Amino acid sequence: VSPAASSTRDAGGRNAASRVGSVAPFEIRPADAAVHAAALRYLDDLTKPRGSLGRLERLAARLCAMQRTLEPRVDAPATLVFAADHGIAHEGVSAYPRAVTAQMVANFLSGGAAISVLARSQRMSLTIVDVGVDADLAQHAALLSRKMARGTGNVCEQAAMTPAQLAAAIAAGADAASQAISHGANVLLLGEMGIGNTAIGALLLHQLSDWPLEQCVGRGTGIDDAQLARKHALLTRAALRTRGAGIAAGDATNALDYLSECGGFEYAALVGAILATAERQVPVLIDGFAVTVAAAYARALAPAVLDYCVFAHVSAEHAHRALLAHLDADPLLDLQLRLGEASGAALALPLVQASATLLTDMATFSGAGVSR
Amino acid sequence: VSPAASSTRDAGGRNAASRVGSVAPFEIRPADAAVHAAALRYLDDLTKPRGSLGRLERLAARLCAMQRTLEPRVDAPATLVFAADHGIAHEGVSAYPRAVTAQMVANFLSGGAAISVLARSQRMSLTIVDVGVDADLAQHAALLSRKMARGTGNVCEQAAMTPAQLAAAIAAGADAASQAISHGANVLLLGEMGIGNTAIGALLLHQLSDWPLEQCVGRGTGIDDAQLARKHALLTRAALRTRGAGIAAGDATNALDYLSECGGFEYAALVGAILATAERQVPVLIDGFAVTVAAAYARALAPAVLDYCVFAHVSAEHAHRALLAHLDADPLLDLQLRLGEASGAALALPLVQASATLLTDMATFSGAGVSR
Repeated sequence: VSPAASSTRDAGGRNAASRVGSVAPFEIRPADAAVHAAALRYLDDLTKPRGSLGRLERLAARLCAMQRTLEPRVDAPATLVFAADHGIAHEGVSAYPRAVTAQMVANFLSGGAAISVLARSQRMSLTIVDVGVDADLAQHAALLSRKMARGTGNVCEQAAMTPAQLAAAIAAGADAASQAISHGANVLLLGEMGIGNTAIGALLLHQLSDWPLEQCVGRGTGIDDAQLARKHALLTRAALRTRGAGIAAGDATNALDYLSECGGFEYAALVGAILATAERQVPVLIDGFAVTVAAAYARALAPAVLDYCVFAHVSAEHAHRALLAHLDADPLLDLQLRLGEASGAALALPLVQASATLLTDMATFSGAGVSR
Repeated sequence: VSPAASSTRDAGGRNAASRVGSVAPFEIRPADAAVHAAALRYLDDLTKPRGSLGRLERLAARLCAMQRTLEPRVDAPATLVFAADHGIAHEGVSAYPRAVTAQMVANFLSGGAAISVLARSQRMSLTIVDVGVDADLAQHAALLSRKMARGTGNVCEQAAMTPAQLAAAIAAGADAASQAISHGANVLLLGEMGIGNTAIGALLLHQLSDWPLEQCVGRGTGIDDAQLARKHALLTRAALRTRGAGIAAGDATNALDYLSECGGFEYAALVGAILATAERQVPVLIDGFAVTVAAAYARALAPAVLDYCVFAHVSAEHAHRALLAHLDADPLLDLQLRLGEASGAALALPLVQASATLLTDMATFSGAGVSR
């Protein structure tokens, strides 16, 4: 990724007018409609009542359309968790102290976190990408160091990051995703860790959608009413600051400006990872609220990206259900999760794999000698 | 199981007054409340925000309470699919001909059906129990032959089965479940196959709940409006017949009478399997509408049985959601499935396994050095 000139291509073209400049364009082709239709026809020939596998049939057809085959494969999953700190966390917007970001990265790597357990039990690679943790992390085989800074600026006072940092963070995410795919992954699971990042997600959503802030702000990891009021007040300040800087809300062509103004590094990296995965025509499992916000930003840069997104779950975070509906997403699970870390994506993976395997491995009516 | 005398014990005691006589009692102890409370406390000490794994935490605590341990194990699943034919299928209540029951059993055994694919990909044993298929089935290592008859009587004209057949079918289900547990299974998945059996399930639900028949009847494998009207008319006849025989609806103490009057053999076997699994303090994954109806009958015989039931999903079958609510069930998935065969249970199994593994394998705050 470079601060490249404008492009006629999708993501690049829309960014040309941004005051941030432009990131290198991603070439994202829509999923294949003809393969999608062929997959739906094939599903009707399998030994089950038509449509009786419900949403898994629709998902199976989508996987076919993404991968341009009637034999989709999602048996080599890779999980990327992007971790970063946030200036706003100094103001106290979370139930946890800021140091927990680095502590949880250590916990991911030593195998004790939820995503570690899920990755291990599903025989799935797990890579943590440090794009801005406020600590010197010890080297580890599963840790990719792409630190932009030790946390973003405090969005109540200043821009979260510079345009150059934004481009670099998007590139870091894209690189991590491309690397996983080059190493053989045929489905990517994306997650995040960063104390304070549901606050930033709410602000990003507010900017992009122009929905009232109350609709966007939630309890994150579990704050009480007083903390929620404080979080709302801080984000109101931050939103006023960016509008004071002349950046109107609710305009998809301003998406890169919102990202550099609000942060965080993990959001920018997630946007890059989603775009790069879609460019490679690989399905990407979107985890909870934060990753869904990143998917909304990726769509603002390249609408076709949603063809490759599989929304894992609707979480307990306040704005998630409305955001998913806005994206026409059909999340697989509704388990009242509110953890992040790609945990919801990991829990949904077996359903994604089952949908592919049912399509490829079930018998047809004629093959099995079953009457229609 | 014998047509035993009354008993002071739970399931047996309640059956003493039944005109069917009694089945041997099952001794079902409630899940352990103290272990449940200890599990919830332990979950709060794991490295995640309190409650952030949502419904999986509640499920993990339930598994602990069933198995009387803080180290629950659900890593040795066994699937039992009970297959039988129904006299009413001659009247045309399904989108498929009656011969499909036997054809699908063959498909289960040769590996081409949905449940075959799911069992294989999850390394899970699959046993088909023939309790009344109208065909001579070839022997197979995964086929247990406990055929009561070649299908039940037509419930529009006569009782589905004799009291002796009912007792034998319940015993067949209980035996199959006990055998799987004795062979090492620590979680059971139950399913069914039988052309016409959503009609019978609707009738069974109507009898037990006294809900209007319209609330109980659905489209099964996918019948059209005219077929639905016909199904409703046939079941009205059947319900009138049983009331003419002096069996009042809506009375849990009549549960065995409803089963012998309405059928089917697979329902009776499922009731036995659920009761026997609960007696062994093993979690049982309840599949779709038919198995949920069987769970409602098992509860009528022994209320504590629900402590051991994990409801896998809410299906697209009309009455399923209301029935689950009536049972205070919290189904894990909502995928618009309407297939049966234990397919929904198999799809939910990874979530059940994840809930146990997260509890046993995650680090604690103190262990991982993470700030609270």
